[in-house]
Amino acid sequence: MDSDGGAIEVSLSAISSKALWQATDRWNNSELFKLKDSKGKQYCLTATCEEDITDLMKNYIASYKDMPITIYQMTRKYRDEIRPRGGILRGREFLMKDAYSFASNEEDAFASFQKLDDTYNKIFKDLKIPFVSAWADSGDIGGEFSKEFHLIHESGEDTLMSCKHCGDISTLDMSQSYPEKDGQYSGDVDCKYALTKDHSTLICFYYPKDRQLNWNLALNAMDKDIDLTLRNKPNDHVLQVYEKDNEDIMFSKILRVMDCRLNSKSNFPDFPLKKYLKNNFGQISDVSIVDAQENEICGKCEEGRLEPLKSIEVGHIFLLGNKYSKPLNVKFVDKENKNETFVHMGCYGIGVSRLVGAIAELGRDSNGFRWPAIMAPYKVSICTGPNNPENSQRLQDVKSKLLNDPTMQNLQNDILDQFNEKLGIGARIKLSHAMGIPLCVIVGSKSWPNVEIEIRGIRWGEKDLWRKQFEKRCSELQWKCTKNEHGIEKHTVPIQHLVEVIGVLLKDM
Amino acid sequence: MDSDGGAIEVSLSAISSKALWQATDRWNNSELFKLKDSKGKQYCLTATCEEDITDLMKNYIASYKDMPITIYQMTRKYRDEIRPRGGILRGREFLMKDAYSFASNEEDAFASFQKLDDTYNKIFKDLKIPFVSAWADSGDIGGEFSKEFHLIHESGEDTLMSCKHCGDISTLDMSQSYPEKDGQYSGDVDCKYALTKDHSTLICFYYPKDRQLNWNLALNAMDKDIDLTLRNKPNDHVLQVYEKDNEDIMFSKILRVMDCRLNSKSNFPDFPLKKYLKNNFGQISDVSIVDAQENEICGKCEEGRLEPLKSIEVGHIFLLGNKYSKPLNVKFVDKENKNETFVHMGCYGIGVSRLVGAIAELGRDSNGFRWPAIMAPYKVSICTGPNNPENSQRLQDVKSKLLNDPTMQNLQNDILDQFNEKLGIGARIKLSHAMGIPLCVIVGSKSWPNVEIEIRGIRWGEKDLWRKQFEKRCSELQWKCTKNEHGIEKHTVPIQHLVEVIGVLLKDM
Repeated sequence: MDSDGGAIEVSLSAISSKALWQATDRWNNSELFKLKDSKGKQYCLTATCEEDITDLMKNYIASYKDMPITIYQMTRKYRDEIRPRGGILRGREFLMKDAYSFASNEEDAFASFQKLDDTYNKIFKDLKIPFVSAWADSGDIGGEFSKEFHLIHESGEDTLMSCKHCGDISTLDMSQSYPEKDGQYSGDVDCKYALTKDHSTLICFYYPKDRQLNWNLALNAMDKDIDLTLRNKPNDHVLQVYEKDNEDIMFSKILRVMDCRLNSKSNFPDFPLKKYLKNNFGQISDVSIVDAQENEICGKCEEGRLEPLKSIEVGHIFLLGNKYSKPLNVKFVDKENKNETFVHMGCYGIGVSRLVGAIAELGRDSNGFRWPAIMAPYKVSICTGPNNPENSQRLQDVKSKLLNDPTMQNLQNDILDQFNEKLGIGARIKLSHAMGIPLCVIVGSKSWPNVEIEIRGIRWGEKDLWRKQFEKRCSELQWKCTKNEHGIEKHTVPIQHLVEVIGVLLKDM
Repeated sequence: MDSDGGAIEVSLSAISSKALWQATDRWNNSELFKLKDSKGKQYCLTATCEEDITDLMKNYIASYKDMPITIYQMTRKYRDEIRPRGGILRGREFLMKDAYSFASNEEDAFASFQKLDDTYNKIFKDLKIPFVSAWADSGDIGGEFSKEFHLIHESGEDTLMSCKHCGDISTLDMSQSYPEKDGQYSGDVDCKYALTKDHSTLICFYYPKDRQLNWNLALNAMDKDIDLTLRNKPNDHVLQVYEKDNEDIMFSKILRVMDCRLNSKSNFPDFPLKKYLKNNFGQISDVSIVDAQENEICGKCEEGRLEPLKSIEVGHIFLLGNKYSKPLNVKFVDKENKNETFVHMGCYGIGVSRLVGAIAELGRDSNGFRWPAIMAPYKVSICTGPNNPENSQRLQDVKSKLLNDPTMQNLQNDILDQFNEKLGIGARIKLSHAMGIPLCVIVGSKSWPNVEIEIRGIRWGEKDLWRKQFEKRCSELQWKCTKNEHGIEKHTVPIQHLVEVIGVLLKDM
């Protein structure tokens, strides 16, 4: 974040004041935890920090010279989720790394967005985890556009649609799909009513009954502003509002939006309104307004087939425009010495605790966890037999070799060599595996001066990367590798070559 | 905490449930921030974590074999303080390092207390800050006894009493003092009434009108349990309660507690009760029940004189006994296979954010902060002139010497050498001083290959420790030192000896 993202770390309070959230019209969000102090003043626990960071930077940004600037923090966030699940995968308290960029113009704002996009990509790559980024809906955060980061995993609650032909990956909300051939659906048709914001126009979305209406696509299919408060209301209710607000049929309009899968022979429901003027009647067709399905044609390239991927969302970045700077009135003096433009913002979140939960899901098996080396509690464990002078001496030999070799990265805090005395060597190895430590170095009296390195579970890096080096160097290093029936790899190597072998193996971890 | 304290790190939620705080009778604490979720369930923000940690460990501790064990965390805490002040010195949200020990018997519990006491002493010593520890009142946390850690500073809101003769330091609550000679006070006498818990006995505390009654000493002067709910009630109210609950004077008792400064000639207030039996009348004298004053005699050694010290409390450790384990029902199976004893606990807090604020108070002057090297944002800054190839090369020379010398501790993240390009060398030096960086290395084109090291402000270590080494080695190292009129020290040394000189100087920082 500091070197690649050029960002400055801060640490804001978890308590935010009502006034800020009212200014941005987010105080009524049902997921906010609210509280009062002894004087009756109202606060919320921060669900995200756009309001507080924008308010903070208002005191710092005076001129265009103060930008671009990016701020980040890693603090706990709070959301009164209706359905917390999977422990830290979706908790009501969670750790989030959130960054916020401020720029004096759109180009700089987009450059900041790209820089942070690159930095977040690098973070996930450094973790060696299988991730994708997907164009996404901006939801409650809002703004101009957004991108999500996902771990692909069958247990995920999200669905992404991926096109192998053009490489596009989008969330279901954003995924436009087409059938092999338009107008082939002849079954029952479902309809959802909506109103424009001014309630002057009734919108009728028609789509196949066996499909899900996709609100995001439906809204994008039109150039009209929809009254979203009616989104979850039944059709009868929407019609009542429409009839009440449009007693004069001269000015009431009707717009039919037809999913491209329908044809005139499809079984449409009866149209409930008897009175309307034909001139006030419009139709949009040839659009796709339902959730994409496997094997449909990608709406981006119109060539490839879509493939659904189950995934866990772990990050979301937004180009916000002036969504927050406008209501919180953050302007700056520009090059022409005018003070009229609102700051252009972006925000960038990684769900840190959720990411740990997701990686646990991906890497666990019946023997325990298997963490990527970069986040494992230790990179290497050293397991010996009973605490006697001989074993202690060997342990010290191995440890000092690992710590003092200039080619190794600093392993000072990355070696586990202290176990409960009562544990035998077998129990120590088992514990090391259960904790998800990548490499377990076994120092046994029989094999000495050879040592064994045990590896189990998922390979986070390029699988068997080490073999390429192994084949060239194995005989020189007297390095042997076997795999047992439980899928555990055993590497045997003389103590004098241990450091080099560990260095090679860690690259896979 | 891990190596010296033998403690295990955890990180608990900032949200705690009402049921736990009700069980320990702390839910009604007026400093608790309270909140509800969407289902109406009540929570508080954790002010401390005894309840949650005890509840957590209940699931872990089954047998005496699971103890002793100590747990710690460094998380934000929340208290609805009526008077937040001094920024992070007393905030409603603050960072606390809190540890909790669990033991199966009193000896082990006390051993854990001593171990953590030692560890906390070491933490403050490593910070090189002037601190004292003082016996203290346990307050709302409760338990058997407690000790506070204080930074001595004139701006502090606490008062400690110190005896130079015996070395005892106590908080004012705990400081017993005696006058030069008893019974010398002949002025007006003040009186405060109290009742025993069963309301059968009226207690009358008599003390000089120009002194403050010390409740802690007053309570310790007797072996009776006092009804503390009447502590802040006026005398009239206490008398009314006493008369109401003691209509039969046969069973009502009166106890007079006389401060040792009084004598029979002192001007006592009228005694308001006319009817009482002489047999039911008792008196305690020769006790000191008022706040200690400067130059009075130490109650511990009865020889030295007391000296008041203004201070800032930064830590507090408690031997809790079973104050929390009993209401939360944490028992264990003992060596006799019985499951009857409650766990013995201790708790240990350092106010981390307050400590930073207190150190800022101690170390700041008109030029900025001066942090102890161990907590400074950087230990060393390197300031050069304009960004040209010559200056860049010299900067690289100095930096690589500092980073690659095996005698230096790893300074990788402790060197500031990146400044805003627009800043000249003077502004860079000023900024380095303002940020409180201990050593400012100035690489100027004139003096090269000599470099200057500027030092300003407070010395946290043993002042001028370096001179002892300097005197022996100065000529060999060509090391010169001057001090200018602003109190800034300038050390001049050739580049080839820079690393050694920096190593020596840092010990003072």
